[in-house]
Amino acid sequence: VKDRPRVYLAGPEVFLPDAAEIGRRKRVLCEAYGLIGLFPLDNDIAAAGAEVQVDRAIFRLNVAMMRRADAGIFNLSPFRGPGADAGTVFELGLMQGFGKPVFGYTNAADTLLARTPGVRRDAKGVWRDRDGLMVEDFGNADNLMLDACLADSGAPMVRAATTCALADLTGFEPCLRLAAARLRVGGVV
Amino acid sequence: VKDRPRVYLAGPEVFLPDAAEIGRRKRVLCEAYGLIGLFPLDNDIAAAGAEVQVDRAIFRLNVAMMRRADAGIFNLSPFRGPGADAGTVFELGLMQGFGKPVFGYTNAADTLLARTPGVRRDAKGVWRDRDGLMVEDFGNADNLMLDACLADSGAPMVRAATTCALADLTGFEPCLRLAAARLRVGGVV
Repeated sequence: VKDRPRVYLAGPEVFLPDAAEIGRRKRVLCEAYGLIGLFPLDNDIAAAGAEVQVDRAIFRLNVAMMRRADAGIFNLSPFRGPGADAGTVFELGLMQGFGKPVFGYTNAADTLLARTPGVRRDAKGVWRDRDGLMVEDFGNADNLMLDACLADSGAPMVRAATTCALADLTGFEPCLRLAAARLRVGGVV
Repeated sequence: VKDRPRVYLAGPEVFLPDAAEIGRRKRVLCEAYGLIGLFPLDNDIAAAGAEVQVDRAIFRLNVAMMRRADAGIFNLSPFRGPGADAGTVFELGLMQGFGKPVFGYTNAADTLLARTPGVRRDAKGVWRDRDGLMVEDFGNADNLMLDACLADSGAPMVRAATTCALADLTGFEPCLRLAAARLRVGGVV
């Protein structure tokens, strides 16, 4: 029996009080699509060895999990501000760098521009925030490197407008469908 | 004559009105350390072809630039909130995924925890923000994936307390020194 494909489940829900339960729900949904979900909190920190600092241990275990994974699904919902969580974004870049298929969703339907406070056009018509920093106007959900990475990979960011931002799984299921299709096409199953 | 090593210069200064001038200053500093600086804004968008959307063209050119680069230096200063710019963080992950040396600095000396508004300990002693989201307490400048990536690579994040956050190059020079040493040791020069 060939192993089912493994999907790394990245997202800032690890910071919620009920993180473990959200991870469990994501893994159950993975099963329904013939996939094995790998949730970062399932790593056993003790496995890294007591002599390693906890943050370094978590980093190494997460990276090892991404190396074991056949693909990644990233929760890129706004986190503590207009944009996605830095840890999740780092992992999106890392798995793209590994050359593995990546899929992403956000629980906000609007654009980064719409979510950035105090934006206005300058004399040249360029959108800038209160500090004078340019805000991209490509209709993307986040920084273009994130949206274009996903679009260029063949699966544009799934935008699911939901009320319960971080934990809602409305946008997760379309990503699962895409991942299942891609991994089977790739001959993994 | 062997080519000098090329260093990709990532950071949110591309969003400042004087982005091109900051890029120029970074390239001049690179020269002083025997390196060639590759600044994203130096890409010629037209080279991607007129049929490609602008955001996708920028993405592809930046990725191609990172593939050409021998290393990357990342400006991870706080950007529109407590944490680093998403585009820069994505690129850090990508170059780490490519297996290239990465170096990072931040123009804030304090921790992510200290910069996150409204934090307080919950009943279990865990720091949480106003939305109940956990805030890491490892003394890191940002999400542990960023700090641990750099520390694990042998060059911990350079923390330069400056007043002019995004454009200041105080933390950039120590990264250049580290990059120059690493690339020479690696036999590139």
